[in-house]
Amino acid sequence: MGATGSIGIQTLDVIRLHPEQFSLYAMAFGRNIEKALPLIHEFNPAIIVVQDEDTKAKLQKELNHSYILCGGEGLIEAGTAEPVDVVVNAVMGSIGLPATLKAIQAKKIIAIANKETLVTAGHLVMEEARKHQVELLPVDSEHSAIFQALNGEKRKNIEKLIITASGGSFRDKTRKELEGVTVEDALNHPNWSMGAKITIDSASMMNKGLEVIEAHWLFDVPYEQIHVILHRESVIHSMVEYVDRNVIAQLGTPDMKVPIQYALTYPERMDLPVTNHLNLEELATLNFEKMDMDRFPCLRMAFEAGKAGGSMPTVLNAANEEAVQLFLEGKISFLDIERYIEEALERHDRIHNPDLSTIISIDEETRKRVRFHLN
Amino acid sequence: MGATGSIGIQTLDVIRLHPEQFSLYAMAFGRNIEKALPLIHEFNPAIIVVQDEDTKAKLQKELNHSYILCGGEGLIEAGTAEPVDVVVNAVMGSIGLPATLKAIQAKKIIAIANKETLVTAGHLVMEEARKHQVELLPVDSEHSAIFQALNGEKRKNIEKLIITASGGSFRDKTRKELEGVTVEDALNHPNWSMGAKITIDSASMMNKGLEVIEAHWLFDVPYEQIHVILHRESVIHSMVEYVDRNVIAQLGTPDMKVPIQYALTYPERMDLPVTNHLNLEELATLNFEKMDMDRFPCLRMAFEAGKAGGSMPTVLNAANEEAVQLFLEGKISFLDIERYIEEALERHDRIHNPDLSTIISIDEETRKRVRFHLN
Repeated sequence: MGATGSIGIQTLDVIRLHPEQFSLYAMAFGRNIEKALPLIHEFNPAIIVVQDEDTKAKLQKELNHSYILCGGEGLIEAGTAEPVDVVVNAVMGSIGLPATLKAIQAKKIIAIANKETLVTAGHLVMEEARKHQVELLPVDSEHSAIFQALNGEKRKNIEKLIITASGGSFRDKTRKELEGVTVEDALNHPNWSMGAKITIDSASMMNKGLEVIEAHWLFDVPYEQIHVILHRESVIHSMVEYVDRNVIAQLGTPDMKVPIQYALTYPERMDLPVTNHLNLEELATLNFEKMDMDRFPCLRMAFEAGKAGGSMPTVLNAANEEAVQLFLEGKISFLDIERYIEEALERHDRIHNPDLSTIISIDEETRKRVRFHLN
Repeated sequence: MGATGSIGIQTLDVIRLHPEQFSLYAMAFGRNIEKALPLIHEFNPAIIVVQDEDTKAKLQKELNHSYILCGGEGLIEAGTAEPVDVVVNAVMGSIGLPATLKAIQAKKIIAIANKETLVTAGHLVMEEARKHQVELLPVDSEHSAIFQALNGEKRKNIEKLIITASGGSFRDKTRKELEGVTVEDALNHPNWSMGAKITIDSASMMNKGLEVIEAHWLFDVPYEQIHVILHRESVIHSMVEYVDRNVIAQLGTPDMKVPIQYALTYPERMDLPVTNHLNLEELATLNFEKMDMDRFPCLRMAFEAGKAGGSMPTVLNAANEEAVQLFLEGKISFLDIERYIEEALERHDRIHNPDLSTIISIDEETRKRVRFHLN
């Protein structure tokens, strides 16, 4: 799910490296036919899912394929198809949520790269996962780091999770300097090559905020035990401190193929020759700084929305997605992103334990409010 | 075993912290009655073992205790006593070897802080451990780090072990500057507070060499897959790189109570409130440098002796123990240590797969040769 995005492409890279282990049964993407076509020819999936009827029609002109599906229903059919073992949820936004829930019910292993699924509906997703004894395997480098640092250790022995943040493209700018930044400035991330949305989220530190909420759900750890530190080199991807003061960390080069492959091979490991070895002697220095919540209000808001719980994280996420979109469209400034989110959170009356349809309607309503603000 | 040494005292600190979990059944020390007496009164062990009859006689004058044993035989009786669950081998030198083998045969868990046991007789100890399905739990911070970073992962998925070295008290001195160093200079270790022998070994880098050989045996990893890097802050205690490029590390403050307690509680963990939390924000920077084998010939010799195998590591270890003793006595210079070891290794004809009595006689012979050199 999300095959032509950054994670999707790298997932296919991993599949390509291990043809004896993996094959692609179903492939879902949005509208990028140009990017998808050579991949379809190469991996020959039994099911193709696209975003809408228009894209389906266009694709059918290019391709003789008997099974092209559309939208949310298509995602569900692909994600629950009998031959599927692992569903990689790497779509953008919350569109993958219903399909993920259905795939869990069908007892598929879920490799989760989509933060919104857990941010907006962590309580529903984790409840389903527990009920059907399905393991959710994180693909985000930070959560993969924590997952590996935990490696079967008991929840009660966790003192805290320590999530590292590179600081994004604006880490050395003051609040004042942020006022004039452009979309191009924001898209220039120092360590990782990623999609536009997540790169903006890195610059605003909302990405880290969403990761905090995701970590809360994935690892069942209260927000008071989740700590974020600035680590500009992104070499330590995250850590777990235990009650006996042992800290276990995962380190690596900034290559998403590493956590993607781990999610696909877990609990086994497989060679990954295309990725460089971590070379600490060459890196020479790792730096750590205290995270400043005043400098990065998006992170503060994420902690607050997470602690408030209920529908608040849904509002946080929907407002952020829409505001980032408006920023990328050149319609609002970078600092407007956090202002729009703050306003959306303030205006919302928290709903306790929302069900899926409530989440979807709050998500839509919040997006409209953020857009409406502009018009 | 080694209750009045640095590791022994800190093991008792851990026992003191968890009186509901641990008690001391047997206590072995050398000759330091003054240090031992208050500990005997506090922990009230059923068995006491001292180094010799003379110490036993002196102790009996101070103490009304019905069960005081002597020397190697005493260690064996204490280590195999029925109520004992865990034997902490923290004696200095190779005196603990026969008792460790007997304790393994009696299916005791072995917490191993004594490097010489594995360095001189790794093939015998590991064979016994496999035969009797006994787990050897490392107490050294580096090996505890690797053990935790492995945490049940499969041997075949290890790409390499990365052992960190602080560099010891002379890390910033050139070879030239090492010529005039004193015992006092050498005993001034920048990060860890340890016994005299191990502090000298840290300065010469032989400590790291012994750790490499120990890691080879404990984790069944060939020397070609063991890598040493300089990391002056000693915050990352060691790492494991896997075939999929994930690197797992253990980090912590320099407090030996952490690995000691982990060895005692494994596979559980327990609170350790007396030890500070690792504070990376405060530490701010971690540095890594390439290890220079020309600057530290003791490390090179350890790798060579380890790869040569057979009786060579026994010679390496015995020559080192004796040379360090001569240095501490003020009889030879710091750089003589490596010269004496090199000469001992050159003069020795390697014996393949030596048994315990061969190891003991080679050990004694090597010590004599090193002493004889002087007279």
